[in-house]
Amino acid sequence: MTQPRPTPRPIKFDPASLQFNDQGLIPAIAQADGSGEVLMMAWMNAASVAETLASGRVTYWSRSRGELWRKGETSGHVQRLVEMRIDCDRDCLLVIVEQTGPACHTNRRSCFYTAIRDAAEVEFLTPEAAG
Amino acid sequence: MTQPRPTPRPIKFDPASLQFNDQGLIPAIAQADGSGEVLMMAWMNAASVAETLASGRVTYWSRSRGELWRKGETSGHVQRLVEMRIDCDRDCLLVIVEQTGPACHTNRRSCFYTAIRDAAEVEFLTPEAAG
Repeated sequence: MTQPRPTPRPIKFDPASLQFNDQGLIPAIAQADGSGEVLMMAWMNAASVAETLASGRVTYWSRSRGELWRKGETSGHVQRLVEMRIDCDRDCLLVIVEQTGPACHTNRRSCFYTAIRDAAEVEFLTPEAAG
Repeated sequence: MTQPRPTPRPIKFDPASLQFNDQGLIPAIAQADGSGEVLMMAWMNAASVAETLASGRVTYWSRSRGELWRKGETSGHVQRLVEMRIDCDRDCLLVIVEQTGPACHTNRRSCFYTAIRDAAEVEFLTPEAAG
Protein backbone atom coordinates (compact mmCIF):
# COMPACT_ATOMS: atom_id res chain seq x y z
CA MET A 1 0.00 0.00 0.00
CA THR A 2 1.25 3.43 -0.85
CA GLN A 3 1.26 6.10 1.77
CA PRO A 4 -0.94 9.10 1.09
CA ARG A 5 1.24 11.94 -0.20
CA PRO A 6 1.61 14.68 2.35
CA THR A 7 0.11 17.99 1.38
CA PRO A 8 3.06 20.02 0.10
CA ARG A 9 3.91 22.83 2.46
CA PRO A 10 3.96 26.23 0.81
CA ILE A 11 7.42 27.48 -0.08
CA LYS A 12 8.11 30.70 1.77
CA PHE A 13 9.18 33.29 -0.76
CA ASP A 14 12.66 34.74 -0.40
CA PRO A 15 13.68 37.58 -2.76
CA ALA A 16 17.26 36.28 -2.63
CA SER A 17 16.07 33.14 -4.44
CA LEU A 18 15.46 35.13 -7.63
CA GLN A 19 18.00 35.19 -10.46
CA PHE A 20 19.34 38.71 -10.58
CA ASN A 21 21.66 39.87 -13.35
CA ASP A 22 25.26 40.94 -12.69
CA GLN A 23 23.98 44.34 -11.58
CA GLY A 24 21.71 42.68 -9.02
CA LEU A 25 18.58 43.51 -11.02
CA ILE A 26 15.61 41.60 -12.41
CA PRO A 27 13.15 42.88 -15.04
CA ALA A 28 9.61 43.49 -13.79
CA ILE A 29 6.68 43.75 -16.19
CA ALA A 30 3.68 45.72 -14.93
CA GLN A 31 0.28 44.58 -16.18
CA ALA A 32 -3.01 46.32 -15.40
CA ASP A 33 -5.41 44.24 -13.36
CA GLY A 34 -8.65 43.75 -15.23
CA SER A 35 -7.77 45.10 -18.68
CA GLY A 36 -4.58 43.04 -18.88
CA GLU A 37 -2.82 45.91 -20.62
CA VAL A 38 0.97 45.74 -20.37
CA LEU A 39 1.88 49.11 -18.90
CA MET A 40 5.66 49.22 -18.58
CA MET A 41 8.81 47.29 -17.86
CA ALA A 42 11.32 48.42 -15.26
CA TRP A 43 13.91 46.84 -12.98
CA MET A 44 13.90 45.71 -9.37
CA ASN A 45 16.64 44.69 -6.98
CA ALA A 46 16.10 42.46 -3.94
CA ALA A 47 15.30 45.46 -1.74
CA SER A 48 12.64 46.78 -4.12
CA VAL A 49 11.06 43.33 -4.41
CA ALA A 50 10.88 43.13 -0.62
CA GLU A 51 9.53 46.67 -0.27
CA THR A 52 6.92 46.09 -3.00
CA LEU A 53 5.63 43.02 -1.17
CA ALA A 54 5.73 44.64 2.26
CA SER A 55 4.14 47.96 1.27
CA GLY A 56 1.79 46.85 -1.51
CA ARG A 57 3.11 49.82 -3.50
CA VAL A 58 5.17 48.84 -6.55
CA THR A 59 8.76 49.99 -6.06
CA TYR A 60 11.41 49.65 -8.74
CA TRP A 61 15.12 50.37 -8.82
CA SER A 62 15.99 53.47 -10.80
CA ARG A 63 19.12 52.67 -12.79
CA SER A 64 19.60 56.32 -13.76
CA ARG A 65 19.27 57.68 -10.22
CA GLY A 66 20.73 54.64 -8.47
CA GLU A 67 18.00 54.55 -5.85
CA LEU A 68 14.68 52.93 -4.97
CA TRP A 69 11.93 54.30 -7.20
CA ARG A 70 8.59 54.29 -5.45
CA LYS A 71 6.49 54.54 -8.60
CA GLY A 72 4.25 57.61 -8.43
CA GLU A 73 6.02 59.21 -5.46
CA THR A 74 6.30 62.52 -7.31
CA SER A 75 3.65 62.10 -10.05
CA GLY A 76 0.97 60.48 -7.91
CA HIS A 77 0.69 57.77 -10.56
CA VAL A 78 1.13 54.95 -8.09
CA GLN A 79 0.77 51.25 -8.72
CA ARG A 80 -0.97 49.22 -6.05
CA LEU A 81 0.26 45.65 -6.10
CA VAL A 82 -2.44 43.08 -6.77
CA GLU A 83 -0.11 40.11 -7.23
CA MET A 84 3.55 39.42 -7.93
CA ARG A 85 4.42 36.48 -10.16
CA ILE A 86 7.72 34.78 -11.01
CA ASP A 87 8.62 33.11 -14.28
CA CYS A 88 9.93 29.56 -14.73
CA ASP A 89 13.58 30.65 -14.76
CA ARG A 90 13.07 32.97 -11.78
CA ASP A 91 14.73 35.74 -13.80
CA CYS A 92 11.68 37.86 -14.62
CA LEU A 93 8.78 39.20 -12.57
CA LEU A 94 5.23 40.07 -13.56
CA VAL A 95 3.43 42.50 -11.27
CA ILE A 96 -0.33 42.77 -11.62
CA VAL A 97 -1.23 46.30 -10.57
CA GLU A 98 -3.97 48.77 -10.04
CA GLN A 99 -2.57 51.79 -11.86
CA THR A 100 -3.56 55.31 -10.80
CA GLY A 101 -3.31 57.69 -13.77
CA PRO A 102 -1.02 57.03 -16.72
CA ALA A 103 1.87 54.60 -16.21
CA CYS A 104 4.20 56.33 -18.70
CA HIS A 105 6.23 59.47 -18.01
CA THR A 106 4.85 60.81 -21.33
CA ASN A 107 1.40 60.76 -19.68
CA ARG A 108 0.23 57.88 -21.82
CA ARG A 109 -1.59 54.97 -20.22
CA SER A 110 1.14 52.54 -21.27
CA CYS A 111 4.78 52.96 -22.28
CA PHE A 112 4.15 50.68 -25.28
CA TYR A 113 2.38 53.26 -27.43
CA THR A 114 4.41 52.80 -30.61
CA ALA A 115 3.59 49.94 -32.97
CA ILE A 116 5.43 48.80 -36.05
CA ARG A 117 2.91 48.58 -38.86
CA ASP A 118 3.89 48.11 -42.52
CA ALA A 119 7.53 48.64 -41.50
CA ALA A 120 6.76 52.08 -40.06
CA GLU A 121 6.40 53.40 -36.51
CA VAL A 122 2.85 54.37 -35.55
CA GLU A 123 1.90 56.01 -32.24
CA PHE A 124 -1.52 54.70 -31.28
CA LEU A 125 -1.92 56.21 -27.79
CA THR A 126 -2.02 59.93 -27.07
CA PRO A 127 -1.06 61.60 -23.78
CA GLU A 128 -3.91 61.81 -21.28
CA ALA A 129 -5.19 65.20 -20.22
CA ALA A 130 -3.71 66.42 -16.93
CA GLY A 131 -6.04 65.41 -14.11
CA MET B 1 -2.75 82.87 -40.55
CA THR B 2 -1.12 79.65 -39.58
CA GLN B 3 -0.20 77.15 -42.22
CA PRO B 4 -1.89 73.79 -42.00
CA ARG B 5 0.48 71.33 -40.42
CA PRO B 6 1.75 68.81 -42.92
CA THR B 7 0.69 65.26 -42.30
CA PRO B 8 3.66 63.65 -40.56
CA ARG B 9 5.30 61.06 -42.74
CA PRO B 10 5.56 57.66 -41.09
CA ILE B 11 8.95 56.93 -39.57
CA LYS B 12 10.43 53.88 -41.23
CA PHE B 13 11.39 51.42 -38.50
CA ASP B 14 15.05 50.51 -38.18
CA PRO B 15 16.00 47.80 -35.63
CA ALA B 16 19.33 49.62 -35.13
CA SER B 17 17.37 52.54 -33.60
CA LEU B 18 16.49 50.42 -30.55
CA GLN B 19 18.45 50.69 -27.32
CA PHE B 20 20.24 47.40 -26.89
CA ASN B 21 22.17 46.54 -23.74
CA ASP B 22 25.92 46.04 -23.72
CA GLN B 23 25.38 42.49 -24.99
CA GLY B 24 23.40 43.84 -27.95
CA LEU B 25 20.12 42.53 -26.53
CA ILE B 26 16.69 43.97 -25.74
CA PRO B 27 13.99 42.32 -23.60
CA ALA B 28 10.88 41.21 -25.47
CA ILE B 29 7.62 40.49 -23.63
CA ALA B 30 5.23 38.12 -25.40
CA GLN B 31 1.53 38.75 -24.81
CA ALA B 32 -1.27 36.56 -26.16
CA ASP B 33 -3.54 38.30 -28.65
CA GLY B 34 -7.10 38.28 -27.42
CA SER B 35 -6.69 37.03 -23.85
CA GLY B 36 -3.92 39.53 -23.07
CA GLU B 37 -2.11 36.94 -21.00
CA VAL B 38 1.60 37.65 -20.55
CA LEU B 39 3.24 34.46 -21.78
CA MET B 40 6.99 34.92 -21.40
CA MET B 41 9.91 37.29 -21.57
CA ALA B 42 12.99 36.57 -23.64
CA TRP B 43 15.70 38.53 -25.42
CA MET B 44 16.19 39.70 -28.99
CA ASN B 45 19.15 41.14 -30.85
CA ALA B 46 18.85 43.32 -33.96
CA ALA B 47 18.92 40.27 -36.23
CA SER B 48 16.10 38.52 -34.37
CA VAL B 49 13.99 41.71 -34.41
CA ALA B 50 14.48 41.94 -38.17
CA GLU B 51 13.75 38.25 -38.72
CA THR B 52 10.63 38.39 -36.53
CA LEU B 53 9.25 41.26 -38.59
CA ALA B 54 10.24 39.73 -41.93
CA SER B 55 8.99 36.21 -41.22
CA GLY B 56 6.03 36.92 -38.92
CA ARG B 57 7.40 34.15 -36.67
CA VAL B 58 8.68 35.38 -33.32
CA THR B 59 12.42 34.77 -33.14
CA TYR B 60 14.46 35.45 -30.00
CA TRP B 61 18.16 35.27 -29.24
CA SER B 62 19.08 32.30 -27.08
CA ARG B 63 21.65 33.53 -24.57
CA SER B 64 22.48 29.97 -23.47
CA ARG B 65 22.99 28.63 -27.00
CA GLY B 66 24.29 31.87 -28.49
CA GLU B 67 22.10 31.60 -31.58
CA LEU B 68 18.81 32.73 -33.07
CA TRP B 69 15.93 30.94 -31.37
CA ARG B 70 12.99 30.51 -33.70
CA LYS B 71 10.41 29.89 -31.00
CA GLY B 72 8.73 26.53 -31.52
CA GLU B 73 11.21 25.26 -34.10
CA THR B 74 11.63 21.99 -32.18
CA SER B 75 8.49 21.98 -29.99
CA GLY B 76 6.04 23.24 -32.61
CA HIS B 77 4.90 25.82 -30.09
CA VAL B 78 5.36 28.73 -32.48
CA GLN B 79 4.35 32.34 -31.96
CA ARG B 80 2.86 34.10 -34.94
CA LEU B 81 3.53 37.82 -34.72
CA VAL B 82 0.39 39.95 -34.59
CA GLU B 83 2.14 43.22 -33.75
CA MET B 84 5.48 44.42 -32.40
CA ARG B 85 5.47 47.43 -30.08
CA ILE B 86 8.29 49.59 -28.67
CA ASP B 87 8.31 51.33 -25.31
CA CYS B 88 8.97 55.02 -24.67
CA ASP B 89 12.67 54.48 -23.96
CA ARG B 90 13.08 52.16 -26.95
CA ASP B 91 14.71 49.64 -24.61
CA CYS B 92 11.92 47.07 -24.34
CA LEU B 93 9.67 45.34 -26.88
CA LEU B 94 6.16 43.96 -26.53
CA VAL B 95 5.19 41.33 -29.07
CA ILE B 96 1.52 40.50 -29.44
CA VAL B 97 1.35 36.90 -30.58
CA GLU B 98 -0.87 34.04 -31.58
CA GLN B 99 0.59 31.24 -29.50
CA THR B 100 0.37 27.63 -30.66
CA GLY B 101 0.40 25.29 -27.67
CA PRO B 102 1.98 26.25 -24.36
CA ALA B 103 4.53 29.07 -24.34
CA CYS B 104 6.58 27.67 -21.45
CA HIS B 105 9.14 24.87 -21.73
CA THR B 106 7.38 23.29 -18.69
CA ASN B 107 4.32 22.85 -20.95
CA ARG B 108 2.37 25.51 -19.10
CA ARG B 109 0.48 28.14 -21.06
CA SER B 110 2.57 30.94 -19.55
CA CYS B 111 5.98 31.04 -17.89
CA PHE B 112 4.50 33.16 -15.09
CA TYR B 113 2.76 30.32 -13.26
CA THR B 114 4.07 31.02 -9.76
CA ALA B 115 2.42 33.70 -7.64
CA ILE B 116 3.47 35.05 -4.29
CA ARG B 117 0.47 34.85 -1.97
CA ASP B 118 0.67 35.40 1.77
CA ALA B 119 4.49 35.43 1.46
CA ALA B 120 4.51 31.94 -0.05
CA GLU B 121 5.00 30.63 -3.58
CA VAL B 122 1.88 29.17 -5.18
CA GLU B 123 1.80 27.46 -8.58
CA PHE B 124 -1.53 28.25 -10.18
CA LEU B 125 -1.06 26.76 -13.65
CA THR B 126 -0.48 23.08 -14.34
CA PRO B 127 1.30 21.62 -17.37
CA GLU B 128 -0.96 21.00 -20.34
CA ALA B 129 -1.50 17.46 -21.58
CA ALA B 130 0.74 16.56 -24.51
CA GLY B 131 -1.12 17.26 -27.76
